[in-house]
Amino acid sequence: MDLAQDIADDLMIDAAQEVRIRQDLVLTALGHRPADRALRVGRLLDVHSRTWSEDQEIVFKGRRIAWVGPAGSYRGEVRERVQRPDLAAVPGFGEVHKHIESSHLTPEWEAALVLPRGNTWTCEASHEFSNVNGARNLEFWFEARRRGSPLKIFPQPGSAVPPTAYEWGGGWYGGAEQASFMRESLMVTGLDEVMDWPAVWNPDNPSYERLWGMIGATFAARGVVEGHASGLRELPEINAFAAAGLASDHEVQTPEETWDKLTRGLFIELRIYAMPEIIGWLLKKGLQDWSQIAFTTDDRSASHTLALGASDHNARVAIEAGLAPEIAIQCLTINPARHMRLTPFVGSLAPGRFGDVVLLSDVGKLEIAEVWADGAQVSEGTRYLGDVPRIAWPDWATQTINIKREIKAEDFALPAAPGRTTMQAAVIRPFHWHPEFYTFELAVRDGAVQRDESQAITKFAIVDRFSGDGLVSKMFWKGCGPRTPETALACSVAHDKHNIWAVGSSDAAMAKAVNALVAQQGGWALVREGELAATVRFEVGGLMSCRRAEALDAEMQALYAEGRKVDWMYEPTFRPRWYPGFPERLMFATLTCAPWSWVLVAPCEQAPQGFINVQTGKTHPVVW
Amino acid sequence: MDLAQDIADDLMIDAAQEVRIRQDLVLTALGHRPADRALRVGRLLDVHSRTWSEDQEIVFKGRRIAWVGPAGSYRGEVRERVQRPDLAAVPGFGEVHKHIESSHLTPEWEAALVLPRGNTWTCEASHEFSNVNGARNLEFWFEARRRGSPLKIFPQPGSAVPPTAYEWGGGWYGGAEQASFMRESLMVTGLDEVMDWPAVWNPDNPSYERLWGMIGATFAARGVVEGHASGLRELPEINAFAAAGLASDHEVQTPEETWDKLTRGLFIELRIYAMPEIIGWLLKKGLQDWSQIAFTTDDRSASHTLALGASDHNARVAIEAGLAPEIAIQCLTINPARHMRLTPFVGSLAPGRFGDVVLLSDVGKLEIAEVWADGAQVSEGTRYLGDVPRIAWPDWATQTINIKREIKAEDFALPAAPGRTTMQAAVIRPFHWHPEFYTFELAVRDGAVQRDESQAITKFAIVDRFSGDGLVSKMFWKGCGPRTPETALACSVAHDKHNIWAVGSSDAAMAKAVNALVAQQGGWALVREGELAATVRFEVGGLMSCRRAEALDAEMQALYAEGRKVDWMYEPTFRPRWYPGFPERLMFATLTCAPWSWVLVAPCEQAPQGFINVQTGKTHPVVW
Repeated sequence: MDLAQDIADDLMIDAAQEVRIRQDLVLTALGHRPADRALRVGRLLDVHSRTWSEDQEIVFKGRRIAWVGPAGSYRGEVRERVQRPDLAAVPGFGEVHKHIESSHLTPEWEAALVLPRGNTWTCEASHEFSNVNGARNLEFWFEARRRGSPLKIFPQPGSAVPPTAYEWGGGWYGGAEQASFMRESLMVTGLDEVMDWPAVWNPDNPSYERLWGMIGATFAARGVVEGHASGLRELPEINAFAAAGLASDHEVQTPEETWDKLTRGLFIELRIYAMPEIIGWLLKKGLQDWSQIAFTTDDRSASHTLALGASDHNARVAIEAGLAPEIAIQCLTINPARHMRLTPFVGSLAPGRFGDVVLLSDVGKLEIAEVWADGAQVSEGTRYLGDVPRIAWPDWATQTINIKREIKAEDFALPAAPGRTTMQAAVIRPFHWHPEFYTFELAVRDGAVQRDESQAITKFAIVDRFSGDGLVSKMFWKGCGPRTPETALACSVAHDKHNIWAVGSSDAAMAKAVNALVAQQGGWALVREGELAATVRFEVGGLMSCRRAEALDAEMQALYAEGRKVDWMYEPTFRPRWYPGFPERLMFATLTCAPWSWVLVAPCEQAPQGFINVQTGKTHPVVW
Repeated sequence: MDLAQDIADDLMIDAAQEVRIRQDLVLTALGHRPADRALRVGRLLDVHSRTWSEDQEIVFKGRRIAWVGPAGSYRGEVRERVQRPDLAAVPGFGEVHKHIESSHLTPEWEAALVLPRGNTWTCEASHEFSNVNGARNLEFWFEARRRGSPLKIFPQPGSAVPPTAYEWGGGWYGGAEQASFMRESLMVTGLDEVMDWPAVWNPDNPSYERLWGMIGATFAARGVVEGHASGLRELPEINAFAAAGLASDHEVQTPEETWDKLTRGLFIELRIYAMPEIIGWLLKKGLQDWSQIAFTTDDRSASHTLALGASDHNARVAIEAGLAPEIAIQCLTINPARHMRLTPFVGSLAPGRFGDVVLLSDVGKLEIAEVWADGAQVSEGTRYLGDVPRIAWPDWATQTINIKREIKAEDFALPAAPGRTTMQAAVIRPFHWHPEFYTFELAVRDGAVQRDESQAITKFAIVDRFSGDGLVSKMFWKGCGPRTPETALACSVAHDKHNIWAVGSSDAAMAKAVNALVAQQGGWALVREGELAATVRFEVGGLMSCRRAEALDAEMQALYAEGRKVDWMYEPTFRPRWYPGFPERLMFATLTCAPWSWVLVAPCEQAPQGFINVQTGKTHPVVW
């Protein structure tokens, strides 16, 4: 099915079309052809030199900038003139590393959310939907743009498809696939975050050839290989990571680690969590050159973006930490554009680039008055004025929870060996970044090994959503999940493979929650005391919803409200961002990249029970 | 003929081999495999953050860097340890835009010349040899490296092949050729300086399709399109140039022009001529961000490099103008590497990059003590210690002056119309950047129009060296050439098409000089008062000589000495760098790119007499 019926020529970046666009821009800049629009601003930031100029004019032709110069100096004809003498113009912000799937909005609604926050182009770190439907991945990301959405999405096919050699279903990307993606579109900038570090360094790892195949295909096409160096903080690993050709890291958590990575040539993409500390430290150290630093929202949800902002929020955090606003703006514009080799198209207010302008009413506070994209105004304050193409996402996007049977309580039972009154159980915690699992002795009742609420031990399961059979792996987890009886939470966002996870105080509640998810094709389902208490629909890929951010947020708030009525177990863990209360971040507790070791995955050939050490490939029974 | 017999795997950059190299580097960085060499230095400059660290160690494996860190912290085995506690390590310098042909040395001897000056990698702006033998161009540039030369040459096929639609012979590059070059090697970074500006902006120009075809092919392969914006100083042209996607300029001559180009997104490549003024001006303006600026030697000859230095000299000029040495070093390392999208390979002392290190005994004065390249020392002071592969350049490189007849005095005659005692003559000067030519009335004698020494008018000719027929175009030029009788100077370096030019006080002397050049297959020939007084051999492509720089320089000095015995006419012209005395720069007076208008080219279909306005395509008789 060819979705886009009315493709405008200049929406996508294509070499042949690029030539025609630029031939036209040249004649427009020279004044031989009329321009479409001129935007006169009080001042304008050139990010190449980090300098302001007063009373400037940006002249647009089509979706691009044809001219920048002092107001009144353009000698050609202009169809429409717009004056913003009180506003300061800076380039449209670029998101250097974002999983739009984590907004839980489809791309056309993501655009409506982030454009008013200044975000006019996004490097889509694409290993979520690609794990669901690898074959349709580029088509999915390009569709909204092809239909006129002003947000430029630059997909980077995920290296984590599948995340490890022990996961399967939905997508498989190797060297040949990556070579094909790089050929297919110039909007594909490279390879997304290589994060299975054991598979990069260890020739014996079963994903070694696949990953290096993707890296090699990216080199071959002059693309950028993005990294993910979470937990790599020692010099041998940091040097090795850089030597591998992995060009960036967005997982830095300490200033020292940031410094060691920056000075080994890794491009640093800062999230907000440790940002005040890291930026304060770098300023104190006297860092003068910030050209190798950018900001990223990574997995920020629509609800958080509504509350905080998009990467503009990161910039405000940086400014509050003492960074000059102009440098913060460079971290959102020219720095990521240069890193991603996208400077001809985005990242500055210069001729040839897309006509993306953020108009600030207060530079020091980064207060956004208006945003322009593709040469036209698309927002006023946080109100989006641009087009949202109405896309009837087809079955390949909306029918992705493939479980052709009813899930039952028995699917979650862990049978005991005959005659045993207790069994040993392997237990891990969310974000269990420890090389060993715990072993607990748990009671046997009705032939099955039981939870132990007194030790904060409950059951966690992964339900395969790809094979149709609904294969289930399950084990005991500690320090998470409901203490409230007959209660379970299930979700189809289970980074990065995106099976369904469920955590619950009873097997029946877990089954009920999962079945609710199957019925609605993904999202969240909360069963409280035996009743379905709240659901949130992620009907696209089981990850996203095709609706306005505010509508999705309202549903999320209702889920949180119901969630607050549940008594949630909590224990702190290795990972800093694991909070008490509604365990939303269990979405990320299913990750299998470094530095994870023992994890639960859907049943696979190497680990029929799903319990495996992804660093070594060792398996272990979950009870014995 | 396949020249290189013993290709080492890791000399060239190739995606498949790159994977194998990096797989090995990773294990070396982790200490699982032994490293080859460790270089301990007093301090080390990280150009990503522009900061020094004390007592550091660089660990090499093969030709690459595997590790950088505090001395003693590498945990692997090292075969050889070298200590340089009194020296400061900075990355090998990159030449962002150089015509090695203008050194007049073949690549293996260029390496021996520039490596001791810190230059470990060179972006070869390749439109000289390519105009002589376009088909063998990449082969030519890669040959020395394939045989082990430590200089990394990154050829950028020239857009000026041919320079204008009115020149021919030796090479023809369009979109298909450029696509093929980009496919052939990752060491091809993009398209070299687009400089036929009338052909870029004007759809009616006969080179329009060819040039945009090359630009499009470069976009398609994610390459960089280099620019040449000589004489473009007004905002319409600068905006149009940037809008065309031409990413750089190395022709800036004034601070204001530099600023207008920098702030329109052009990467600025500074030559030494206006550098003190431009850098002083930028510093005074308070420029804090120099990341979009690099230094270039462009057409520096071996003699000048011996006298001044390579791009290290540019850095010293910049430092003298007030630039911080660390920023000057960034302008030679990370800045050009990032612009050329070569950061995985060169531009910093970081893992994965080639093991190229400049060791400074004095940072403030940029005094070079040693240079390392490919992980081994290659120089001490200005003495080159590395290998110079002995290359027997084959006929396709050494037999390129194709003139299958004797050139005669009559070839340079300009016959008068019957019965005339004077004729009108079109006259131009070297670097005649004026839209109109001059008209002079010149005497007729023996049926031919004559020179007029009293008005500093002599004869200038282009002799085709491609067709075999030795086609000759000739006209009167003013303010250059010998006043001494029976004297002529000829040279086979005639930018950018590289036919033979000759200037002389008699037709017979001109013929004698050209015939001498044919006999020696290129270079310089000076005929003084009827005798061959000096020659310099450029036996490779008629542009370069396969020998040590010092040997070539000695021959050049002998030529200059003989040249000093000649009385040379001189008049200043539009171009700032046109000096009295030996008219060496006539090599560049045959350029046809913007802002040239009326030029003399070899006879062509559009201009049988060779006199043509390259901006408009108009022709005119040379006498009438």
